Amino acid sequence: MSRILVLPGDGIGPEIVDEALRVLEAAQARFGLDIELDHGLVGGAACDAEGDPLPEGTLEKARAADAILFGSIGGPKWDKLERDKRPERGLLRLRSSLGLFANLRPAILFPQLAGASSLKPEVVSGLDILIVRELTGGIYFGQPRGIKEENGERVGFNTYVYTESEMKRIARVAFDLAMQRGKRVCSVDKANVLEVTELWKEVVTEEAKAYPEIELSHMYVDNAAMQLVRAPKQFDVIVTGNLFGDILSDEAAMLTGSIGMLPSASLDENRKGLYEPCHGSAPDIAGQGIANPLATIMSLAMLMRYSLQRGDVADAIEAAVEKVLDQGLRTADIHTEGSRKVSTGEMGAAVAEAL
Amino acid sequence: MSRILVLPGDGIGPEIVDEALRVLEAAQARFGLDIELDHGLVGGAACDAEGDPLPEGTLEKARAADAILFGSIGGPKWDKLERDKRPERGLLRLRSSLGLFANLRPAILFPQLAGASSLKPEVVSGLDILIVRELTGGIYFGQPRGIKEENGERVGFNTYVYTESEMKRIARVAFDLAMQRGKRVCSVDKANVLEVTELWKEVVTEEAKAYPEIELSHMYVDNAAMQLVRAPKQFDVIVTGNLFGDILSDEAAMLTGSIGMLPSASLDENRKGLYEPCHGSAPDIAGQGIANPLATIMSLAMLMRYSLQRGDVADAIEAAVEKVLDQGLRTADIHTEGSRKVSTGEMGAAVAEAL
Ligand SMILES: CC(C)[C@H](C(=O)O)[C@@H](O)C(=O)O
Ligand SMILES: CC(C)[C@H](C(=O)O)[C@@H](O)C(=O)O
Repeated sequence: MSRILVLPGDGIGPEIVDEALRVLEAAQARFGLDIELDHGLVGGAACDAEGDPLPEGTLEKARAADAILFGSIGGPKWDKLERDKRPERGLLRLRSSLGLFANLRPAILFPQLAGASSLKPEVVSGLDILIVRELTGGIYFGQPRGIKEENGERVGFNTYVYTESEMKRIARVAFDLAMQRGKRVCSVDKANVLEVTELWKEVVTEEAKAYPEIELSHMYVDNAAMQLVRAPKQFDVIVTGNLFGDILSDEAAMLTGSIGMLPSASLDENRKGLYEPCHGSAPDIAGQGIANPLATIMSLAMLMRYSLQRGDVADAIEAAVEKVLDQGLRTADIHTEGSRKVSTGEMGAAVAEAL
Repeated sequence: MSRILVLPGDGIGPEIVDEALRVLEAAQARFGLDIELDHGLVGGAACDAEGDPLPEGTLEKARAADAILFGSIGGPKWDKLERDKRPERGLLRLRSSLGLFANLRPAILFPQLAGASSLKPEVVSGLDILIVRELTGGIYFGQPRGIKEENGERVGFNTYVYTESEMKRIARVAFDLAMQRGKRVCSVDKANVLEVTELWKEVVTEEAKAYPEIELSHMYVDNAAMQLVRAPKQFDVIVTGNLFGDILSDEAAMLTGSIGMLPSASLDENRKGLYEPCHGSAPDIAGQGIANPLATIMSLAMLMRYSLQRGDVADAIEAAVEKVLDQGLRTADIHTEGSRKVSTGEMGAAVAEAL
């Protein structure tokens, strides 16, 4: 039996997670999966109910689960709260408490949606990049940090720090994943300026020795931001730290023009993971039934593949998504002339049906 | 009399600076400018000659000058040197020693080169963004920094730090520049994670009170990296810190498809400045006479505008560049069918002639 904890969160989170659960039900029926679902509060919803974006109860349930299906968090309603109570902090604490250090963010262009990209079709057609972002270290968690008073003025400070072992383990995840793909890894750093990334480059290079088949390259982060725009198809797997990964994975996702389609996985050492769409909680459209549930449904596919070791179920879910896209079904965010505009619920139902 | 220090640097630096000087000569003839030129070594060239990427003599000349015309630095030849001797460190020390805290990086799409962008024409046509990047603080210069041994492993660390006064002065530069443009400023931070940028957001908001006509917005850096790809024309002026500015200005420059066209200015409190093209030293094509000198020529125009207060000369140089583009002259990097491919020297001569 596998335990999945469901954390819908805020904004459109509950709606899109509902559709993923509908697809999960269809998958259980078809594949006879033995899954126990649990539910919990996180983010603004948890703040409202219990005054904490990651209540102890949720964390306990998360520890007990094999995988977590996560919606999205945040919204203007909670922006004025003190720092530790803000929804984002709940997500950051969850990642860190569970040791979910490996964040996998694919940027894939669905041929059916090629027109949605702001880039020229020839630049992005067939795009298939995997960004591997370190998720529990770097400047996100470095100490000391804060805002202090010095010489009569305020000073803000954070610390960008990585240990050798943190670098090694994320490099290995990237190499292992690249071995199942194009066998090319580009490590992104700013080694010409930042010592921490100078060490990053060194350690990644050392780890690569154990993977003679991998072609490893290095790129400065400013150049990577340019190359993603200029010629994104040059990349196979990109591995980088927490902050650069945050920036580059969003940039890469947007190249596809359909961020509402992109899933992500955050894994620990034992492939226990948290799965969430790349997009945010979109409070402006919450509750209207127009959000795109496909990124969450594809996140469920990743959950099957990585945490439940059911690549077959993952393949089937992904095929079902392709099928409804082929049928011309589109939520508002990816709708173009000639296709059929559907609601969040219709889209979820269609995928479940196709499965 | 104005003194300009010329620092050609490495790679294609000397070739492109030569063409800018040819244009400067034409400008002197036309406008009767009283300019004294000085020359110095920087980067790898200075390392080779004097073992230091920023020799004391060069720094003295730089202090004495009203403006610096800079080519480009770096190349594989010097990558193996110890950290302090590398060409980039020379540039960083120069920026910091002269207090060149305000880095202005325009991302402009020349209508004549619209086809060069990897983005769809309707997404980028008419693009005109100005990125104002803080250049002498932040994680680039923060202490402590280094690589140490701890618990039997290596640990890399850097410090991201900004004082209130550093934030204030760069915000004011951005607001002043926006007042001469579209009056909209977007401040980019990661205030939901990093305290230093939480303070940044606060201070920028406070400073904005003195500019009631300015429309100020805030954006997280990951979202900014996305929005630049999705809909770059939404931006007028972007203001941000050193590292985010490094990444976003390169991304924005690449949106135009012609990074060989984009100049930059780095100014101190008194508008003394260093002017350099946004592109690098391109060692692979150095010495072949095929590099595009227009970014350096446009940097000379910025020099006239900001450090020499000669907006009229700047306008004339920019008009001359437009004219040769209209004539269909293109260096290899921006060449397309139907236009005339010219060498570095031919391009420089044509602009000088047009002037
Ligand atoms: C919400 C925020 C803290 C988070 C991050 O920066 O990691 C988000 O941008 C992401 O990428 O998942
Ligand atoms: C060469 C390097 C140190 C420099 C920087 O990071 O500032 C460059 O990328 C730039 O943007 O001028």
